[in-house]
Amino acid sequence: MPEYTAPVRDTQFVMTDVLNLQKYADLPGFRNADGDTIAAVLEEGGKFVSEVLFPLNQVGDHEGCTRQQDGSVTTPAGFKAAYDQFVEGGWGTLGQNADYGGQGLPHVVSMAFEEYMCSANMAFAMYPGLTAGAIAAINVKGSDEQKQTYMPKMISGEWTGTMNLTEPHCGTDLGLIRTKAADAGGGSYKISGQKIFISAGEHDLSENIIHLVLAKREDAPDNVKGISLFIVPKFLVNEDGSIGERNGVICGSIEEKMGIHGNATCVMNYDEATGYLVGEPEKGLAAMFIMMNAARLGVGLQGLAQGEVAYQNAVTYARERRQGRALTGPEDKDAKADPIMVHPDVRRMLMDARAFTEGARALTMWAALQIDLAHHAETEEEREEADEIVGLLTPVIKGYFTDKGFETAVNAQQVYGGHGYITEWGMEQYVRDARIAQIYEGTNGIQAMDLVGRKLGRNGGKALMQFAAMVTEEIEAAKADEVLAPLAAKLEKAGGELQAATMWLMQNGTANPNDAGAGAVPYMHLMGVVSLGLMWLKMARAAQARLADGASDDGFYTAKLITARYYMDRYLPDAGALRRKLEAGAESMMALPEEAFARG
Amino acid sequence: MPEYTAPVRDTQFVMTDVLNLQKYADLPGFRNADGDTIAAVLEEGGKFVSEVLFPLNQVGDHEGCTRQQDGSVTTPAGFKAAYDQFVEGGWGTLGQNADYGGQGLPHVVSMAFEEYMCSANMAFAMYPGLTAGAIAAINVKGSDEQKQTYMPKMISGEWTGTMNLTEPHCGTDLGLIRTKAADAGGGSYKISGQKIFISAGEHDLSENIIHLVLAKREDAPDNVKGISLFIVPKFLVNEDGSIGERNGVICGSIEEKMGIHGNATCVMNYDEATGYLVGEPEKGLAAMFIMMNAARLGVGLQGLAQGEVAYQNAVTYARERRQGRALTGPEDKDAKADPIMVHPDVRRMLMDARAFTEGARALTMWAALQIDLAHHAETEEEREEADEIVGLLTPVIKGYFTDKGFETAVNAQQVYGGHGYITEWGMEQYVRDARIAQIYEGTNGIQAMDLVGRKLGRNGGKALMQFAAMVTEEIEAAKADEVLAPLAAKLEKAGGELQAATMWLMQNGTANPNDAGAGAVPYMHLMGVVSLGLMWLKMARAAQARLADGASDDGFYTAKLITARYYMDRYLPDAGALRRKLEAGAESMMALPEEAFARG
Repeated sequence: MPEYTAPVRDTQFVMTDVLNLQKYADLPGFRNADGDTIAAVLEEGGKFVSEVLFPLNQVGDHEGCTRQQDGSVTTPAGFKAAYDQFVEGGWGTLGQNADYGGQGLPHVVSMAFEEYMCSANMAFAMYPGLTAGAIAAINVKGSDEQKQTYMPKMISGEWTGTMNLTEPHCGTDLGLIRTKAADAGGGSYKISGQKIFISAGEHDLSENIIHLVLAKREDAPDNVKGISLFIVPKFLVNEDGSIGERNGVICGSIEEKMGIHGNATCVMNYDEATGYLVGEPEKGLAAMFIMMNAARLGVGLQGLAQGEVAYQNAVTYARERRQGRALTGPEDKDAKADPIMVHPDVRRMLMDARAFTEGARALTMWAALQIDLAHHAETEEEREEADEIVGLLTPVIKGYFTDKGFETAVNAQQVYGGHGYITEWGMEQYVRDARIAQIYEGTNGIQAMDLVGRKLGRNGGKALMQFAAMVTEEIEAAKADEVLAPLAAKLEKAGGELQAATMWLMQNGTANPNDAGAGAVPYMHLMGVVSLGLMWLKMARAAQARLADGASDDGFYTAKLITARYYMDRYLPDAGALRRKLEAGAESMMALPEEAFARG
Repeated sequence: MPEYTAPVRDTQFVMTDVLNLQKYADLPGFRNADGDTIAAVLEEGGKFVSEVLFPLNQVGDHEGCTRQQDGSVTTPAGFKAAYDQFVEGGWGTLGQNADYGGQGLPHVVSMAFEEYMCSANMAFAMYPGLTAGAIAAINVKGSDEQKQTYMPKMISGEWTGTMNLTEPHCGTDLGLIRTKAADAGGGSYKISGQKIFISAGEHDLSENIIHLVLAKREDAPDNVKGISLFIVPKFLVNEDGSIGERNGVICGSIEEKMGIHGNATCVMNYDEATGYLVGEPEKGLAAMFIMMNAARLGVGLQGLAQGEVAYQNAVTYARERRQGRALTGPEDKDAKADPIMVHPDVRRMLMDARAFTEGARALTMWAALQIDLAHHAETEEEREEADEIVGLLTPVIKGYFTDKGFETAVNAQQVYGGHGYITEWGMEQYVRDARIAQIYEGTNGIQAMDLVGRKLGRNGGKALMQFAAMVTEEIEAAKADEVLAPLAAKLEKAGGELQAATMWLMQNGTANPNDAGAGAVPYMHLMGVVSLGLMWLKMARAAQARLADGASDDGFYTAKLITARYYMDRYLPDAGALRRKLEAGAESMMALPEEAFARG
């Protein structure tokens, strides 16, 4: 039966040996995060998700959510009790604002726990995940009163949150939204309209649900500049903070879908529901991007997390299943067949998974650290730099991680042969669950356009230059070491492809925007390939340093060095191909007249 | 709602303009296949699958098959009536042996119909598909009496067939099978054992099911050399050909699985069931490979077919869904948004799908023609050549087509954004159905090992040289034409990568078999990339010739030329990356000790 163990050792290696978290100990926001606290969070968090959430993963898939006739939604058996334990354990409070009941731990710590939770039960993890996105928006854009009213209960997990953007006729193009907000005086509005694809829109886990809803005020421009953000609680909140009357928002139906069955995907109908403006009117898009950017990193994490749990199970199967003989001769002579782990192609799929998940883990935690530094670093310049670079890499983390995470889950399923296709083994669920991450919070094509169209050129390309400098610096640091030098040489070559692709985009993308559009996804993948290469070089250097320090090696550091070599051997070659695809431009892509696409 | 139109025009272009089928008109086996007959088969076949089978595709997925308490299996509503129409229309007889009631049409014709059927309803198509595999084995290895007894009813479709290979503890490694055959005298045996993953193992479509079962006779070697093939009918057949008593084979359970729900995947229990040896004892593997090779081409076809139907639906959605504006400025100024077809990244996914499906269609039909030539060409040498080259390309068609077909279905789903994840749109079913094709009939890793370990070196690499000569010849033929020359130049480069990869394998794979194993999948993909490149150059040349002839162009030939350019731009760059991955060898892939794979 399926299994999951939180990769605590790997997380700690990244924190301690790669990111040197200890060197930030004196910054505000890091003071609570001494080594013992972090270790306790990771160990206990890993235990909680393995013991409480993971056993509900297949149940949740099988049972799904049920909408009752009155519009209420019942989550799968066991979800409510597990959620109570989640609240009791304070697992939602880790990285949250201490002024409102959070523990104020660094993002880099809460992100690690989030990864574990997404591996153990992605559908479950979405309930607190969306709550965190809603909290982020209120924390930055809400009034003091709104913060006081909603944040403590949302941080504790007693109340949950949602994001309401999509409507039947509009997803990516939010300028088209039709949901209306009629001014009801005193800062309150009457919200009417229909939202779809609302994850965690209705359920039985929490006593209240705080919907953050995009709508247009009367007389606002009927485009993207006319959007405002509103808080619409399922139950209105009385002045003393207690639960008041039921608001005019109801779940009209839930979707039957490919995966994440344990999370209700709701059609939400708003009928003159009471809503409260968040931040300034007609500035809803900016507020939404706060939720969105947090959510995008979280979705990237889902890609990594589903890849990780699928990998772990594939390893177990590959060690147990016996079939055929090693190409170099029988390894277990007493048995009739060797474990399939001996076959290079099975290794290929497992090493691909290792190289991706460990590299992605390092990049995620590095990005989380940048978010912490964006808030807490000593100088304005450092804070700005950190903010810019995490902005640059957010679409890469969302887009590349979810594409590769899906591929990793598919490969892990492949290790099982026919058994991978059978539901009870659990592998096909990881594939179905992972698939959504490539689609929601902006499809990966949209991420690529965000990267190429907005992030690359921002502030004269400062963030990209910063990224390039980081790669160069790491390569230089590695060149003197005979173990690291060959890895650095390969990364340098891939970095060169990225540089050339960037130049090409600069030279062609402005004159012909379709060239930028045609190259966006290859460019995003190219940046993903190089980013993880950078992380692997960092990890290899850290592992090499530990070995040189005489750290007792139980194989962990050696494994890092081997996997780093594998990454350079097997992932970096894609860089050249991606560049060449990009440089092909938009000509043959756009030449076909629309009607020629149909068969007939 | 989902739709499907058989791509008859494209099929005819391949047959007439690319393969010049008319030039084989005088060969035996082609005599029945005049242009009118072919046109009628394609038109009527396309109509049959669109009108009868396609409407059952979602129903089949939703309902699935049900095993009753007595071991019988009920197929989804409508399947039985549709199957009756299939039998009545003689759709299973197209390419079959005319001596036993088949129409004796060329494979290239029956294969075209099979593609349509797999697009319209893959789970349904598997019932006749497996029957065809079983017929192939009996046709080649069966005794005259066996042929007389089984083939006419199986060809008509009144009876269906299955392949019983896998057991709980063995899939790929058939040497491990435990099913026993006890000699019962007079050429009959008592078969006992358990088989799993038996597609179409039990159902209510036909009055009898003819199982072809691998088992070991008493005293046979307990390895791959001890395997024999047996016919085990569900109902014994009386001497007059009528249905006799129920045999000792029963469906023990059916699997809950990721997709192809309309096809029952059965655990089959054999309890002293009467079986009849097919061909020589202990030569079962050779007989099985006859079924298997036919089945592998059929599975490759499934990859293409699922890609095709997913593509068609994505095109419709991309033309209807409006979201955002073209990067070059609004195209439909009167509307609030343009159809998403205007966005380069949507085009990228659609053009990727076009370039794959049309290229794969050409290669499949070319391969089917080789099968026909292997039987009917005038000289022994021609027949042998055709047989060798289709043997070489069979693992490529199975492995590369199903990997790319799955990717194509995933991309087509991506075009739908969030709607692609929702069941009612039908896109997620194509992804789930397509997934199995990468796994069954030998996983794609096994296909790659078949290519690299067996097919490449056979007869001193004759088939590969033949393939290389074909590529060179096509390139030379294109060089004089100014439209084709740039395409040829790109293919030449990719061909060079394939050649270098082959050299590397020859130099390293023998001394270190793990190097061959580590490079097998990249090599298979590399060969897939070049093979489709070859087909695209052939198609471009044919289209160019038609235009030069002054054929009236409704856009079809121009579209071919554009898509050929796109293929060279966007697929061929992978060739270099695949070669470099292969040349990395097995070192970093095999270095990690087995226990280091586990997390902890």
